[in-house]
Amino acid sequence: MTAASPTDPTPRAPEDRGSVVISVDAMGGDRGPAVVVAGMAESARKNPEISFVVHGDEAELSRLIARRRDLAGRCDIRHAPGVVTMEDKPSQVVRKGGDSSMWAAIESVRSGEAGAAVSCGNTGALMALSMLRLRRLPGVNRPAIACLWPSKNPQGFNIMLDVGADIRADAPDLLQYAMMGASYARNGLMVQRPRVGLLNVGTEEHKGRPELKEANELIAAAADSGGFDYLGFVEGGDLPSSRVDVIVTDGFTGNVALKTGEGTAKLVGEFLRAAFANSIMSKFAALLAMTSLKRLQKRIDPRRVNGGIFLGLNGTVIKSHGSADATGVSAAIKLAFTLAKSGFQDRLAARVAQSAAASAGTGGEAEAAS
Amino acid sequence: MTAASPTDPTPRAPEDRGSVVISVDAMGGDRGPAVVVAGMAESARKNPEISFVVHGDEAELSRLIARRRDLAGRCDIRHAPGVVTMEDKPSQVVRKGGDSSMWAAIESVRSGEAGAAVSCGNTGALMALSMLRLRRLPGVNRPAIACLWPSKNPQGFNIMLDVGADIRADAPDLLQYAMMGASYARNGLMVQRPRVGLLNVGTEEHKGRPELKEANELIAAAADSGGFDYLGFVEGGDLPSSRVDVIVTDGFTGNVALKTGEGTAKLVGEFLRAAFANSIMSKFAALLAMTSLKRLQKRIDPRRVNGGIFLGLNGTVIKSHGSADATGVSAAIKLAFTLAKSGFQDRLAARVAQSAAASAGTGGEAEAAS
Repeated sequence: MTAASPTDPTPRAPEDRGSVVISVDAMGGDRGPAVVVAGMAESARKNPEISFVVHGDEAELSRLIARRRDLAGRCDIRHAPGVVTMEDKPSQVVRKGGDSSMWAAIESVRSGEAGAAVSCGNTGALMALSMLRLRRLPGVNRPAIACLWPSKNPQGFNIMLDVGADIRADAPDLLQYAMMGASYARNGLMVQRPRVGLLNVGTEEHKGRPELKEANELIAAAADSGGFDYLGFVEGGDLPSSRVDVIVTDGFTGNVALKTGEGTAKLVGEFLRAAFANSIMSKFAALLAMTSLKRLQKRIDPRRVNGGIFLGLNGTVIKSHGSADATGVSAAIKLAFTLAKSGFQDRLAARVAQSAAASAGTGGEAEAAS
Repeated sequence: MTAASPTDPTPRAPEDRGSVVISVDAMGGDRGPAVVVAGMAESARKNPEISFVVHGDEAELSRLIARRRDLAGRCDIRHAPGVVTMEDKPSQVVRKGGDSSMWAAIESVRSGEAGAAVSCGNTGALMALSMLRLRRLPGVNRPAIACLWPSKNPQGFNIMLDVGADIRADAPDLLQYAMMGASYARNGLMVQRPRVGLLNVGTEEHKGRPELKEANELIAAAADSGGFDYLGFVEGGDLPSSRVDVIVTDGFTGNVALKTGEGTAKLVGEFLRAAFANSIMSKFAALLAMTSLKRLQKRIDPRRVNGGIFLGLNGTVIKSHGSADATGVSAAIKLAFTLAKSGFQDRLAARVAQSAAASAGTGGEAEAAS
């Protein structure tokens, strides 16, 4: 951890300078550490309050970081010789990954020296290591991965969880997802009273699997004390809608929906490019429309919604896309910063305890929003 | 059923004229019978081989059809006083819907006077009535609804099933979906050797729910005799891809994916319109790019992929979107025509019998593609 250094080229108010520490796993992404360091520099340039503990190959990281003025004096480099690759099996990483940058990045959260960790590495391994080292919050049965989904809401995104931590979810798990998702919406997206929906194949109460009917009742009963509004069942078409902020589902369904949405947006983007490349006239139009097209791209750019977050552990871990570029890494770091600064982890723990009580039928009174 | 009439304004070769009969439920769609009749007229104009048995309010239908020259002499109007509304519960319709146009439309398929039925009405009721009146094909446990998905394949679409007939599917059901989907791809999309994938949260063989692992083995073993190539697991991002033609999943997951894809495409479309409406310059560009934008719209237009099909019954029933306009209705009718003309129903029955045998471990030799 590094406070403001005397060599820093643009000194800022000392009380803010580097006061929120983010732990970064610089290795294991598809594009290597240079892109991760570029993302860190982008974040550091925009945000004087951030500093980093960065894990990976020390020689390479020192060289990359030395080139970035924005990072001067704001990085604590920690050598980790091991790299978790995309092909490594989570079970192997758990047994043999003790020297890896991923392991060390999580360790910085566990020890409390960093407020949150960011990694572009292997999702399964990151989840397994996070589970192993950070452990589940008391009362959590299944942790979840929450993603951001572009939406028509003022905050620009909706939250969906679980998108792949576990392929199963029982009714009490779904209740916890509702609580954790609402807490994330409050602290990550600044939505004071999130509206929560449960994903189903229809909005009528009699539809869907038995665990969904049970969860529907549990979540409805917990909404008041959980500080959120419960909308009941929502459908796939509601994921980007402005009528809901948090969508709760099991990790199998959520993962399919996430990848389907990404695939569809990508397809439409390709069709759009093909349409504009078709004639001289349309190429000219595309040139004229450049600003509009860039605006569009920005709204549906998956890099800007980069950052799946693991919820339900004793510590905040953000999974950035493996293929994230500097903008993507920076978006994930920004999310980590926002959550670390808000004290999200403690608020989340309080909510989880509350949902465990609600599942057990002993739900308490409303607390201050957290 | 009506053959070429002497009052027909544009007589064509008598051997083709109106030789494929489609049964149409003209009531129950969100936009009323006028739009359905307009869609029929659009189909009749393009296709001399088609004629209709049309069910609904006789007075209204006579009036609407009399206005359409393309339909002259090609419609057999059958009075049905009852209308199934979008709010009716399937269980009520099954008990009390005997006088409805939906019931009568299915009856025309059951009696053999029509090769396929099309309805824009209530999906649940249409499925329940189809099940009741047409019965399941021998060996079918769970019928499925198959939808078309815009894709980068030469045929322009991929097939996904089940998208909502049943929220559950066991391994033998998934095998049947593979067989039925491949048969549909051959007869509806003219893909000679369809490539089939099983939807999962990852492509590794160890991933996913137990029934998926079992289905993975069943489908792999049945591919050769079923006349398709099996790709193993595919992910949500593969739905619009050119590496697969048929995606097999349970009705819960399929329904969520379908609605998520539709919702995402709609959102991107809205963002696109907003981007182009933003400045004088971009409005001008949009004007120039009109042809390109229309081409794009055509590729992602949900009206052109209109037509969920019920598979696994003794008869072909097509569900058109409730809010379909004339183009949408015409697309559903075209699909019904293509399948009726190809003898799809008999070929499908043969495939189902084969998959039942394969599930029982007695899969036979390859047959001629059907």
